[in-house]
Amino acid sequence: MFPALKNDTFLRALLRQPVDYTPVWMMRQAGRYLPEYRATRSKAGDFMSLCKNTELACEVTLQPLARYPLDAAILFSDILTIPDAMGLGLYFEEGEGPKFKRPITSMAEIENLSVDVMSDLHYVTDAVTMIRRELNGSVPLIGFTGSPWTLATYMVEGGSTREFKKIKTLLYKDPAALHLLLDKLATVVAIYLNAQIDAGAQAVQIFDTWGGVLSDSAYLEFSLRYTEKIISQLNVQRDDGTVVPVIAFTKGGAPWLDAMSHCGSDALGLDWSVNIGDVRSQIGERVALQGNMDPAILRAPIATIEAEVQRILASFGHHSHNSGHIFNLGHGITPDIDPEHAGAFIAAVKEHSPQYHQ
Amino acid sequence: MFPALKNDTFLRALLRQPVDYTPVWMMRQAGRYLPEYRATRSKAGDFMSLCKNTELACEVTLQPLARYPLDAAILFSDILTIPDAMGLGLYFEEGEGPKFKRPITSMAEIENLSVDVMSDLHYVTDAVTMIRRELNGSVPLIGFTGSPWTLATYMVEGGSTREFKKIKTLLYKDPAALHLLLDKLATVVAIYLNAQIDAGAQAVQIFDTWGGVLSDSAYLEFSLRYTEKIISQLNVQRDDGTVVPVIAFTKGGAPWLDAMSHCGSDALGLDWSVNIGDVRSQIGERVALQGNMDPAILRAPIATIEAEVQRILASFGHHSHNSGHIFNLGHGITPDIDPEHAGAFIAAVKEHSPQYHQ
Repeated sequence: MFPALKNDTFLRALLRQPVDYTPVWMMRQAGRYLPEYRATRSKAGDFMSLCKNTELACEVTLQPLARYPLDAAILFSDILTIPDAMGLGLYFEEGEGPKFKRPITSMAEIENLSVDVMSDLHYVTDAVTMIRRELNGSVPLIGFTGSPWTLATYMVEGGSTREFKKIKTLLYKDPAALHLLLDKLATVVAIYLNAQIDAGAQAVQIFDTWGGVLSDSAYLEFSLRYTEKIISQLNVQRDDGTVVPVIAFTKGGAPWLDAMSHCGSDALGLDWSVNIGDVRSQIGERVALQGNMDPAILRAPIATIEAEVQRILASFGHHSHNSGHIFNLGHGITPDIDPEHAGAFIAAVKEHSPQYHQ
Repeated sequence: MFPALKNDTFLRALLRQPVDYTPVWMMRQAGRYLPEYRATRSKAGDFMSLCKNTELACEVTLQPLARYPLDAAILFSDILTIPDAMGLGLYFEEGEGPKFKRPITSMAEIENLSVDVMSDLHYVTDAVTMIRRELNGSVPLIGFTGSPWTLATYMVEGGSTREFKKIKTLLYKDPAALHLLLDKLATVVAIYLNAQIDAGAQAVQIFDTWGGVLSDSAYLEFSLRYTEKIISQLNVQRDDGTVVPVIAFTKGGAPWLDAMSHCGSDALGLDWSVNIGDVRSQIGERVALQGNMDPAILRAPIATIEAEVQRILASFGHHSHNSGHIFNLGHGITPDIDPEHAGAFIAAVKEHSPQYHQ
């Protein structure tokens, strides 16, 4: 159905199989820092129109691959497609981030939420299939979703928040209602990721952007539990024998890496707060590690970027028979970054990583 | 000079000496959640006028102690008194947080910053002495400061920030300039804390509110190093043989607790992201631990608050001959909290902690 994969370095690293160099991609690599992205975006209109336009979503997904020798593509989409399809009415106000017209305010609304959303999400699976074809086997395509907890924060707060006041009040005042919401979201997310896998995604990442705001016990109960539930339902074994690796990423997840390493994912995404060598010592026998450069370093002179790449590679250290490292930023690349600096980052990984795989 | 201290439970716990129960205080305990605070604040005018009015600062410091059986008072002040005294022109815009009229924008401005600030900060030391007298030995008085890194974020960003773009750009593009700024701040902070100690502060806390946004290596180099430098300069041994314990608190500091436990402080403040029992196993032989309940739990029903207090006490576990726990929230109490719920929290610590000290 799809052309054979020529560069499987990313997938092999996720499965902790030997590779010749450390594969690299960037979260939000198809994004506003690229002038060609801004040009396509202005054709599409607003952000969600770009997500929903299969051809244009495919176009922007491929843009960073035309510039840089990246080892993976990631579907251009948004984590809030799911609550939008559940009927909350997603919109973006300029400079204000995402908002919902109908945020969740009661148990009754949670009970009435539909989990039958895929009929509204064909634009996502169509984009996956088109991108997979257009990639023509050059590199693997990553599908993704937000975690139930992260999706719930937006759905209850009605948009972005610094305080997480409504969702934490719900968590502590009516945990049963929140569990029902998270359970419904886990069901929907598993269906959604399986649909992306069916459509051609070769790896999937679960973004838990806001898990880090939770207390230790609340993280395990309200975030990680549902990530585990999703992973247990994924169809990761294809009929042709290939496996679809799963990456779990909690920003601010440093306190819970040990617990996360048992959640069923093949790899954990790391933000920049941790020392990747220390994390490898702790859990590197169980999972591959993805990360973990501070995206802010891309504003530095190129020599500083190169030094930081070398520092992180050295911190991870020489690979063993079952270690895996996928180089990435600790969070998405920001709109102000000079594309030349992003290129220098990727080139530095390519130049300096092979010595650690000999 | 001051009346003898009647309740030294807080100081003993900080020094990991035996106590009969787990002492408790709350960050921002003198604050907007209290109607009596709001009344005094409205007399003073704006926030900084309240900080600078010795009598009123003393009055609000004592308000929570009149309500609750707290084991410590904390000076009512703000971490931004220092940059204000350095000439940056602190002001507060309603609903927008702190701002500076003259943020730091160049190396020349850093070089020209005065470290001779105490003549402008008599209102702080005057308040310390007045509060200490008014406390009349009931409980110890905590002095405090922001960490150099945290102060620098406000001074370079010009106010609060979510992105930390300017300060991180400075860090990665001109680390020498940032080091000069941090070094000057460490000098000023040490002088400032010593002045608070001279004026009567019986313990001091260094708030590193924004250390958690740094990468692993940057945290050690740009935040912890300067906290260490300050602590090494503090006059913590009084002539009468008493010791002034030092608490270091980095919000989001979970990845660095081991390194922090060697910074010279007697205690580490913990946010709610960590399991306090695990942290005790890791570093509890070296430092006392302060924390770590999520302040959002204070919005829950009182039974939930009590259960969480019991969970945290049980997680820390039975005390040994050299363990120390000071119960606190993982960050400041928020304005929306019902004072009755804060009281239930404090009562629960008093009720359930003695069994762990037998």
